[in-house]
Amino acid sequence: MKLLRYGNPGQERPGIVDAQGQVRDLSALVADIGGAALSAESLQTIANTSIDSLPLVDRAVRLGPCVSSVGKFICIGLNYADHAAESGMPVPAEPVVFMKATSAITGPNDPIIKPRNSTKLDWEVELGIVIGKHASYVELDEAMDYIAGYCVINDVSERNFQLERGGQWDKGKGCDSFGPIGPYLVTKDEVADPLNLQLWLKVNGKTFQDGSTKHMVFGPAFLVHYLSQFMSLQPGDVISTGTPPGVGLGQNPPVYLHEGDVVELGIEGMGIQKQIVVNAQ
Amino acid sequence: MKLLRYGNPGQERPGIVDAQGQVRDLSALVADIGGAALSAESLQTIANTSIDSLPLVDRAVRLGPCVSSVGKFICIGLNYADHAAESGMPVPAEPVVFMKATSAITGPNDPIIKPRNSTKLDWEVELGIVIGKHASYVELDEAMDYIAGYCVINDVSERNFQLERGGQWDKGKGCDSFGPIGPYLVTKDEVADPLNLQLWLKVNGKTFQDGSTKHMVFGPAFLVHYLSQFMSLQPGDVISTGTPPGVGLGQNPPVYLHEGDVVELGIEGMGIQKQIVVNAQ
Repeated sequence: MKLLRYGNPGQERPGIVDAQGQVRDLSALVADIGGAALSAESLQTIANTSIDSLPLVDRAVRLGPCVSSVGKFICIGLNYADHAAESGMPVPAEPVVFMKATSAITGPNDPIIKPRNSTKLDWEVELGIVIGKHASYVELDEAMDYIAGYCVINDVSERNFQLERGGQWDKGKGCDSFGPIGPYLVTKDEVADPLNLQLWLKVNGKTFQDGSTKHMVFGPAFLVHYLSQFMSLQPGDVISTGTPPGVGLGQNPPVYLHEGDVVELGIEGMGIQKQIVVNAQ
Repeated sequence: MKLLRYGNPGQERPGIVDAQGQVRDLSALVADIGGAALSAESLQTIANTSIDSLPLVDRAVRLGPCVSSVGKFICIGLNYADHAAESGMPVPAEPVVFMKATSAITGPNDPIIKPRNSTKLDWEVELGIVIGKHASYVELDEAMDYIAGYCVINDVSERNFQLERGGQWDKGKGCDSFGPIGPYLVTKDEVADPLNLQLWLKVNGKTFQDGSTKHMVFGPAFLVHYLSQFMSLQPGDVISTGTPPGVGLGQNPPVYLHEGDVVELGIEGMGIQKQIVVNAQ
């Protein structure tokens, strides 16, 4: 299933894509796409429903982030060997973990807001994991049970804030609009192999990232297992699993985003995001 | 005013301390201590109420974290010059920013859960800032308007996870129970000078930290101004402002926490926390 949220920011309603690619309103079944609605039981209830009888939604409507009320937005750094190389950093022995502010989360096609004083605004297409069930000290071979589904994420980054302004990365990762999520939460039953998905990103029509999750160092099951050794995960938590090569920082010379630039990105079977860069007011 | 939350985890109700030091139930005025209830208008409404007419609460009740629904739990690293020295790190030129998982937040007297495989469990008494109003690109001289109040925080840390397990600090900062907050949200009108407060921490009765916020490098107003240049802050967001010297890592040899240890900490005028260390199941 492809679940989504549509409507104005802060007022999104739950939706689902039907067999014809149309959006249907899901309000009759769940209040929102998040929390308890992501449990296996809840998803099964939706799967058992004849969605063609649900109200059609205007295709022109804005899409919101595909998950509501995200409690934690956890990111994995340097999780593609070739991206680590372009960043001039070694492949980590175990996952590098940092956090994005949940206030950075936006819809998949909302503008990227270039912060004041930003000089190195960059992109990162990433496969997102959406947690469906409370996870603490999860065994590796059971970790998939805790995943509700996947989504496209642009881990928008400000490299000057991240790397040149003191110590930790979070400062350049959590700016408002730096976390477009969606368009769809694709339930895991629709993803035959999360470690064999093409993912790509273009800026102004030029392809910069064109990779595959098969080059991921630590896969989704391992990441859920691993993170759950350090902190409990809750339904609706999102894990962004790192980016393949081709970020702006890795170009020679580096390429960064400016007002008016158009960023498009997607993952095989998970839809496409499109963002226009605007300057912060 | 001293605001608090009492009751079982996840079912806390709002409360307030009266002139006799008794706790009164505040449910008649606000649904919870968080979000819109932290606005200047809401706090003024509470201040205008005759709280002696509100229901008394049993003193033996559990206290929850003094803020509900925290969206972001932002921490400032190395914000006391003498703590930076004991950590073997330079005083930063601008604030070091990292995040604690909001799922780490607990009540002020709840146990500290020592994670499996933890070998270097440590403490950090810190002054917490609670945001009262949406803040984005706030001028320094207006920053105090965005602060609802202050609280005691124990920025519990696992130094092995934080410093020896790859790259970023967040991994050793966000474990479950690593964020006791409270007992009180002390509204800013009760804090004459947030940069002249004694703060202390004892382990098993021995004093390890005994400092003053006057040695803080970057004060509350500057931190709100500074952070708001990178991300918007929302009502109920919490900023933990760094710790004075005396953490376990800074002892010679280092001292870490083990099952059964008792941690007590407090800040002048803001109450006391007491935690017992238990092992994770």
